Amino acid sequence: MDRIEFYKHCGLNLDLALEAHEAIRGTRGGEIPGVSLKDESYDIAEVKIVEVLDQRGASIIGKPPGKYITIESDVLRINNKAYHQELSQILADKLKEVLPFKTENDSVLIVGLGNWNATPDALGPQVVEKTMATRHLYGKVPQELTNGLRSVSAIAPGVLGTTGIETAEIIKGIVEKINPSVIIAIDALAAGDVRRIGATIQIADTGINPGSGVGNKRSGINEETMGVPVIAIGVPTVVHAGIIAHGIIENFVQQMKERPPLTELTKELHPPMLKMIIDQVLQPYSNSLMVTPKEIDDLIENTSKVIAMALTEALHPAMPEEVANYIH
Amino acid sequence: MDRIEFYKHCGLNLDLALEAHEAIRGTRGGEIPGVSLKDESYDIAEVKIVEVLDQRGASIIGKPPGKYITIESDVLRINNKAYHQELSQILADKLKEVLPFKTENDSVLIVGLGNWNATPDALGPQVVEKTMATRHLYGKVPQELTNGLRSVSAIAPGVLGTTGIETAEIIKGIVEKINPSVIIAIDALAAGDVRRIGATIQIADTGINPGSGVGNKRSGINEETMGVPVIAIGVPTVVHAGIIAHGIIENFVQQMKERPPLTELTKELHPPMLKMIIDQVLQPYSNSLMVTPKEIDDLIENTSKVIAMALTEALHPAMPEEVANYIH
Amino acid sequence: MDRIEFYKHCGLNLDLALEAHEAIRGTRGGEIPGVSLKDESYDIAEVKIVEVLDQRGASIIGKPPGKYITIESDVLRINNKAYHQELSQILADKLKEVLPFKTENDSVLIVGLGNWNATPDALGPQVVEKTMATRHLYGKVPQELTNGLRSVSAIAPGVLGTTGIETAEIIKGIVEKINPSVIIAIDALAAGDVRRIGATIQIADTGINPGSGVGNKRSGINEETMGVPVIAIGVPTVVHAGIIAHGIIENFVQQMKERPPLTELTKELHPPMLKMIIDQVLQPYSNSLMVTPKEIDDLIENTSKVIAMALTEALHPAMPEEVANYIH
Amino acid sequence: MDRIEFYKHCGLNLDLALEAHEAIRGTRGGEIPGVSLKDESYDIAEVKIVEVLDQRGASIIGKPPGKYITIESDVLRINNKAYHQELSQILADKLKEVLPFKTENDSVLIVGLGNWNATPDALGPQVVEKTMATRHLYGKVPQELTNGLRSVSAIAPGVLGTTGIETAEIIKGIVEKINPSVIIAIDALAAGDVRRIGATIQIADTGINPGSGVGNKRSGINEETMGVPVIAIGVPTVVHAGIIAHGIIENFVQQMKERPPLTELTKELHPPMLKMIIDQVLQPYSNSLMVTPKEIDDLIENTSKVIAMALTEALHPAMPEEVANYIH
Repeated sequence: MDRIEFYKHCGLNLDLALEAHEAIRGTRGGEIPGVSLKDESYDIAEVKIVEVLDQRGASIIGKPPGKYITIESDVLRINNKAYHQELSQILADKLKEVLPFKTENDSVLIVGLGNWNATPDALGPQVVEKTMATRHLYGKVPQELTNGLRSVSAIAPGVLGTTGIETAEIIKGIVEKINPSVIIAIDALAAGDVRRIGATIQIADTGINPGSGVGNKRSGINEETMGVPVIAIGVPTVVHAGIIAHGIIENFVQQMKERPPLTELTKELHPPMLKMIIDQVLQPYSNSLMVTPKEIDDLIENTSKVIAMALTEALHPAMPEEVANYIH
Repeated sequence: MDRIEFYKHCGLNLDLALEAHEAIRGTRGGEIPGVSLKDESYDIAEVKIVEVLDQRGASIIGKPPGKYITIESDVLRINNKAYHQELSQILADKLKEVLPFKTENDSVLIVGLGNWNATPDALGPQVVEKTMATRHLYGKVPQELTNGLRSVSAIAPGVLGTTGIETAEIIKGIVEKINPSVIIAIDALAAGDVRRIGATIQIADTGINPGSGVGNKRSGINEETMGVPVIAIGVPTVVHAGIIAHGIIENFVQQMKERPPLTELTKELHPPMLKMIIDQVLQPYSNSLMVTPKEIDDLIENTSKVIAMALTEALHPAMPEEVANYIH
Repeated sequence: MDRIEFYKHCGLNLDLALEAHEAIRGTRGGEIPGVSLKDESYDIAEVKIVEVLDQRGASIIGKPPGKYITIESDVLRINNKAYHQELSQILADKLKEVLPFKTENDSVLIVGLGNWNATPDALGPQVVEKTMATRHLYGKVPQELTNGLRSVSAIAPGVLGTTGIETAEIIKGIVEKINPSVIIAIDALAAGDVRRIGATIQIADTGINPGSGVGNKRSGINEETMGVPVIAIGVPTVVHAGIIAHGIIENFVQQMKERPPLTELTKELHPPMLKMIIDQVLQPYSNSLMVTPKEIDDLIENTSKVIAMALTEALHPAMPEEVANYIH
Repeated sequence: MDRIEFYKHCGLNLDLALEAHEAIRGTRGGEIPGVSLKDESYDIAEVKIVEVLDQRGASIIGKPPGKYITIESDVLRINNKAYHQELSQILADKLKEVLPFKTENDSVLIVGLGNWNATPDALGPQVVEKTMATRHLYGKVPQELTNGLRSVSAIAPGVLGTTGIETAEIIKGIVEKINPSVIIAIDALAAGDVRRIGATIQIADTGINPGSGVGNKRSGINEETMGVPVIAIGVPTVVHAGIIAHGIIENFVQQMKERPPLTELTKELHPPMLKMIIDQVLQPYSNSLMVTPKEIDDLIENTSKVIAMALTEALHPAMPEEVANYIH
């Protein structure tokens, strides 16, 4: 029961590099050649940095070479403004580490991937809605208002099913018109474990690569296709039911493995035993898990706020307090 | 592995009487005393009528005595107006069979249960939005415009978590003010099988009873609590992950039951075998199943249109074509 | 060209007591018997308190006896969190002055009047969405979590045109079930001057009275109809086009007033004549035509946040910081 | 009191060529050189076609040479499906007259201009939401499903204030990627008369030109800027308050015109004088103040349905009934 092989067979993807790393470690044991892992600890969050160092590492872990920073924190699940601000600051600091800015004049295009009308896929568009675009202000407002502000534009291009156009094509078209120095793409991800939903933010300096995201983009949005660096910010909002189901059976067999024949076993499958087996897989949401949790609307709202705050903090080099106050 | 016992143990509920009926038949075999089942066949739909005849039947099936009409049709999953109109007509006809109207002056209060902001729970509010209220027109518009129209009022009272008030209390308060002859309550349900999502409409002349619905109402909205007959219209929009998980294992054991010891078995659990086991449970949505399917927004939109059309048809005794045209 | 008489003739209403006061002062000059006016000055706001002392004052000013506190501030028009918090504190302080609480056990029902789907009328429902209901927590969560919290419930009952039920009836029905100590009703108002839009908050201890609000309620929601005190919070979001039109002509004539023949003309400008002139321009919509700034969506968003924050501050006697943080 | 001169002075625009035509005829009298006007009469609609034939006509009427088809009908204001279908058919027929298709393989990009979040400006995005994109189906579904379907893509690019990018730049970028044969741009317009709101649809084969639309686009979206023909579909949803105000004074003076001294006065009513009189009433919002009927949400909903139906009918050369049914 090799999990990685099973996912491949079903066309399922582990969007989080950290999960891919864990799954391979679980299957193979030992270090993964060409991949490094680093830990940082904060009051309200754990930060884990998977670095894919070369092609050997890339082919094992299934992610292109680059840096994958995973911020793990439960505070997105609760409506606590103070915690959200703290988490947003950590996210901003980590973003600054990967943003390849050379000067204050470097400009940014923020891309909110996903579908407005499907809650678990609406993270990207919601971040765009909460982000202040500044690019159009230059030359139109007094210069002291744009001092310390970076040129930012922001778009939510929609999804293939409703536009009829590959999202990568739309973005590439815009990039060729406005020539941003860097793209930041925000996307909802599929996790391999329900515990990750609303509890994990991944920053990847490799952009968005084919097959990732809730909506399963087919073309990459990365430096190769766009011609400028692409930083991806992803948050898991769903788990594929197939991954859940696989976990159930894996766990079932694990529970049974020291026992005599299966026909005997079924006699033991009384409700409390079954519930225990299933609960171990479905924690922490258990019965409210639909496999997006019912609270998905609040999670998307909180997470998009945290990301929008972090973008404001990370992008604008020296925003005067006066202006900072204007940002929601 | 008694499914019914397992659900009870986990506090999971089969909202559809037809599913409860099937589960018990599956477990016990034979007829269920005190319960009758009748079939009707239409071009685009199957109608199954479970009637709980007495307390004995009620205690076995876990539903109060009354009539549960289940309309099964796949057409809600597709954007086909002609099919939707046909389905709506079937729904209207079945509604007329249970609506306890005595005269054309009998009035109706439509109640859309559930949460506007959580897509799978928004069915009730969406039906209310698409329904034409007429009660306030009497005495205010020329009489010929209300001729043939029944007095209809409609409310979406919200959910306990955001109002702080039991929904049943809110409705009871309104009922005491406006004295409707009958209440029609629309609610999103939890199914026992993903095949049912967006493919089933249940009419129950017993109203809404504790523990049912996606939002898990705690007080009943039924003739006993409201003092007037309550007709419930419910559509499954989610399956509890626990029910999915149980189905997975049940199916797993079923697949393995003729085989030698389990330790041997795990060797056979190569990906295609696993996928087959899981796919049999997750059909027809399979990988897109989240356990509400991604298409939930469209399903809710289509279903709420079909229900709103059926209500217009079923409620107004002799609507002139001129007025009928005004209804979306 | 008596403005007050013209408004009466057209069925237009000045929802703000302060505007009614100003209009009468402008027309009659001198003090208004039975009405007092008091000023308070804050850094970012002016507070004006009109008190209608007796029936004589009431019949002149067209508002029932009671206290009308008007907070005037331009900060709602800008996205500045610090200013919004300051304004919210002023609003909370003024609310505390009129809230008739006797003990910490007095409970509150918050009512968000107006229509979700019509932006300028959506203020009330938006405040309800941003308000934390607590009434259902008692007896269900550990007592230390509800210590210092008042019992609050909140409902957005919809509008007559979509429910078919007078809003006052719905609320009265709920009041009789849950017996709140006081009702706080939030409503969008129509102003007499566009300067007021998004720049004024009125608190009235007289509740909502017939003919007020964007949606023109017909039955009062006040102590007389509800049996408990009703505090109204209103914010102007529109001006009737007819009022704008009247202002234009008034100003035109004012500009021209030194031409002797024109002073003759104004004698003919009795209300029916003015109405005819204006209706010819505003047909076919006339009284349903509203003037509103393009930025109305942002104004409603900012204002509903300020009011929700003020309610939290004013209602809960001793909220622990830990809980306070959970409120958006 | 030359209306055209006043609008120019205030930077106000008559988006409808028919209104510009009427205003100039009203001011100058007689035929307009270089401009033709044609009428067609239908059961439920009047169609008027203004053709700007040359540069002389263009400079008088303020619109580039081309065809402006105006469909006038009151049926958008009522919820009558039969009428909406009839109107949609007329719109489809008129669209076919101007669509420059050469073969069935010519492709279309539909652009929904305007702001999702501001109701009167949301017409374009709402049409996009209701339109079926087909471009991505080619090569991915069986060919018999795309037979008779034209390749259609659709995008709602947002507005400058939230994206930071000129809308014309975004569209041009996409056009260069996907090379449509023709663009159809849908936009909410500002009218010169409230009677036009929700009662007029304009088709222009000249595209969108600077200064038009509710959101006041600054760069044109036309054949010159895009490199392919652009057909614009516009519907008035607002009137600038300044235009209303001007109309009020004009009508006032008209009513008074038999008083000799007043005829003297009108000589002084040059635009800056009028603007001052009006601005004193409309401050601080002035040009951002819009007049719109309360029913605007329903109008936008009805109109976007009619346009989406017409697009389906006009674009797809031979849609099988089976597929036609799938379109809402």
